Amino acid sequence: MTSIDLNADLGEGFGRWRLTDDERLLSVVTSANVACGFHAGDATTMRRVCELAAERGVRIGAQVSYRDLAGFGRRAMEVPPAELAAEVAYQIGALEVFARAAGARVAYVKPHGALYNRVVRDEEQAGAVVDGVVLADATLPVLGLPGSRLLELAGKAGLPVVTEAFADRAYTDEGTLVPRRQEGAVVTDPESVVARSVGLARSGEVEAHSGRRIRVRARSLCLHGDTPGAVDLARRVRDGLEASGVRVEAFA
Amino acid sequence: MTSIDLNADLGEGFGRWRLTDDERLLSVVTSANVACGFHAGDATTMRRVCELAAERGVRIGAQVSYRDLAGFGRRAMEVPPAELAAEVAYQIGALEVFARAAGARVAYVKPHGALYNRVVRDEEQAGAVVDGVVLADATLPVLGLPGSRLLELAGKAGLPVVTEAFADRAYTDEGTLVPRRQEGAVVTDPESVVARSVGLARSGEVEAHSGRRIRVRARSLCLHGDTPGAVDLARRVRDGLEASGVRVEAFA
Amino acid sequence: MTSIDLNADLGEGFGRWRLTDDERLLSVVTSANVACGFHAGDATTMRRVCELAAERGVRIGAQVSYRDLAGFGRRAMEVPPAELAAEVAYQIGALEVFARAAGARVAYVKPHGALYNRVVRDEEQAGAVVDGVVLADATLPVLGLPGSRLLELAGKAGLPVVTEAFADRAYTDEGTLVPRRQEGAVVTDPESVVARSVGLARSGEVEAHSGRRIRVRARSLCLHGDTPGAVDLARRVRDGLEASGVRVEAFA
Amino acid sequence: MTSIDLNADLGEGFGRWRLTDDERLLSVVTSANVACGFHAGDATTMRRVCELAAERGVRIGAQVSYRDLAGFGRRAMEVPPAELAAEVAYQIGALEVFARAAGARVAYVKPHGALYNRVVRDEEQAGAVVDGVVLADATLPVLGLPGSRLLELAGKAGLPVVTEAFADRAYTDEGTLVPRRQEGAVVTDPESVVARSVGLARSGEVEAHSGRRIRVRARSLCLHGDTPGAVDLARRVRDGLEASGVRVEAFA
Repeated sequence: MTSIDLNADLGEGFGRWRLTDDERLLSVVTSANVACGFHAGDATTMRRVCELAAERGVRIGAQVSYRDLAGFGRRAMEVPPAELAAEVAYQIGALEVFARAAGARVAYVKPHGALYNRVVRDEEQAGAVVDGVVLADATLPVLGLPGSRLLELAGKAGLPVVTEAFADRAYTDEGTLVPRRQEGAVVTDPESVVARSVGLARSGEVEAHSGRRIRVRARSLCLHGDTPGAVDLARRVRDGLEASGVRVEAFA
Repeated sequence: MTSIDLNADLGEGFGRWRLTDDERLLSVVTSANVACGFHAGDATTMRRVCELAAERGVRIGAQVSYRDLAGFGRRAMEVPPAELAAEVAYQIGALEVFARAAGARVAYVKPHGALYNRVVRDEEQAGAVVDGVVLADATLPVLGLPGSRLLELAGKAGLPVVTEAFADRAYTDEGTLVPRRQEGAVVTDPESVVARSVGLARSGEVEAHSGRRIRVRARSLCLHGDTPGAVDLARRVRDGLEASGVRVEAFA
Repeated sequence: MTSIDLNADLGEGFGRWRLTDDERLLSVVTSANVACGFHAGDATTMRRVCELAAERGVRIGAQVSYRDLAGFGRRAMEVPPAELAAEVAYQIGALEVFARAAGARVAYVKPHGALYNRVVRDEEQAGAVVDGVVLADATLPVLGLPGSRLLELAGKAGLPVVTEAFADRAYTDEGTLVPRRQEGAVVTDPESVVARSVGLARSGEVEAHSGRRIRVRARSLCLHGDTPGAVDLARRVRDGLEASGVRVEAFA
Repeated sequence: MTSIDLNADLGEGFGRWRLTDDERLLSVVTSANVACGFHAGDATTMRRVCELAAERGVRIGAQVSYRDLAGFGRRAMEVPPAELAAEVAYQIGALEVFARAAGARVAYVKPHGALYNRVVRDEEQAGAVVDGVVLADATLPVLGLPGSRLLELAGKAGLPVVTEAFADRAYTDEGTLVPRRQEGAVVTDPESVVARSVGLARSGEVEAHSGRRIRVRARSLCLHGDTPGAVDLARRVRDGLEASGVRVEAFA
């Protein structure tokens, strides 16, 4: 039986501010990318999200970011690699304390925002993220884009790698994401998103922007939760997967 | 044979800024109170200090603080206890990653600045610090002032407690510190500081401000390292202790 | 004809996060307390709010706070007075640039959150806020609680003072606010809030918690806007005031 | 008689940390680039530096930066132009309050660190800095590298532009700076630095890395002040200029 992991960003508030509907998302996803305080996520929120995730058996991942609260981690930054590695490790360690307190562990690492995009191609920063993960725990899986520098270097360093796909994003024939500013880059029709999710999970294939069917290796699907509509859609994706006989479960 | 621990604050720079002479201090102290990023201490500095401390066999402690870089943690803050507990745990977890990477462990916790002063008497915040330590690791010793609320509550929670004394501070007859604004609150003569250190270590006694001899329970002496003169004095204290037959070693 | 000013906090998002519905609030209030970056309010938001406020003829005020994004300015802090004064001036100056660019000026200052509460009684911090305002502009009105230390010292320093009242808060017989944790401290029934607003504006009187009618000097009413319901209520208050013949306009 | 302006970065501490020797530098330079809180510079320091500068007749400039205390503004950042413009204006406004309180005005703007380097070539960010300056005050001079995008766009926007040179940096034949990582990029011999300063001021010429003499338009020389040796050298440059008959004065 086919199975797939569902991951989403959680705990992305800060102090007085809320963004993600963590409660509802935790009833949908199997892996929670928890913000660690650098782009979002204060200590109190991290603790609460870890407790909720542990209660519901949702896996806890460290969603590591550039240090940039004002820009929500969406501004690419030229951070010297040694600093970036240390900052990644710092965030993992901070989250680990709350995961353990909740009876769980940090089970994987996923870069956020501008860092996520950067390490698709940037050798130096991809290497720094890997160094940071190894510094924290040399057995931690790294979640990212198939074909990215990050996963390539993580694999070379002996870290388990987990690939993910986006059912709501258009793909090129080469299997990369169509840039957001291009027309049709985002799939907005809920039924299409559900159908693409099922296709990705069952056959590892999806229709590219050109109409061609392409292969996309993905052990996890990334869902969104920063609007009420997004959580509804995430719920529909999960229901659709289960209805089509796909088992929704955290990656091994 | 009598023994004493020597502790000092380290790693109190931030980014481009330096404060403590970490290299030299690590050749003097047996316990390093490492700043964890809330009042000082970036990830790169934390990593480096942990590596140096581990190399030299100096014990690593988490110097936890209010979240206040602009005020260097010297501004008392009314932080709700649940938030304070989570912030304390966050800092310990972040430091733990670097301690482990260096082959060591966070071996104790000591509050910094305004938080240190506050938890001498404030039940709520002292309890929150204890909660934060327990959240991170229910076996971690807490270093603080004898008779403080912090050590009392830490003891009740089953945490090991370690008392400290200040050889360069005047004491009242009751064994509390003479407030800094009072005349004579700080002992500046180096020979007196050395002599008082030896007295505290060997007999557990010191001459109070009034001239009376009083008992001060202290398993550790707190030294300072934020000026060149301070590190010189710390060195003299250590030499003086050893010359008088006191073994300088980390608390058990 | 009686007139009253309506003020509310605006621009209290930060980066990716939103809190107040600034657009709708600006169609209700006559004075906008704009967050200046210390508890909320990034530069982009400050600019936009100033432009909107200027377009609609809403007066712009600097809502100054302790430096505390993580605590939203709600944690009282022991800031040395000279530092607090400089921080207050810094915030006013930063906002002034956007007010001027929009063809307006910063027209008053109102402390936020824990600082607001603190300067009701704390002589030192109230004096520091006044010093900060004078540093920035010795003609700027200060908005605050009648009888507060802040308004007393502002008046002594020659600053215009503007008193405000809260139609949704219970008052003691002495005209002070019933503390929030006490039962009945907050008036939640919308009709009562509207009726109390009209009473405060027309007669300067309100029914205290005890049932007695008391006098409350207020040139402005403080409304809230951090929930959808709050903005609806603010709208009803304005409509109710106008329906009862009160002119809603900024203080002179 | 030839005249030249001397500028240096000042007020680059933060909270407890100090970096620049502001007192001594203010007896050397004619223009002070004051940090505005984004890479360094708290409100208290800004106030003090403005007071000292005004007392000594030193011109006050806003040294604007990316928002990056942890990286001291040395990490290039992809900030959306509208945000960058607003952040630049915010910093100028904050400094203006202290300049005015000291009886002076912000007299020019100079970008710091990574932003300084970025706007040499980056059209979008250079335009954003210009927008930010115009937002704050459309008459403010901009200080920068001759031939930079920044000065080109500032000129087009009607802002006065002021060029600067570095007597301690090697130049290419095209008049650009030899990148720091290249050998010989920094001139360390004090006598050479003084001689080059005099040459730049008197003839507008300097010997390039290749040995050829080239023209470098510069109305100001940039000196450094973040080490004791740097301030000594700055003093020698000023003395050397005056001894050779160059008048050291702020640009008109």
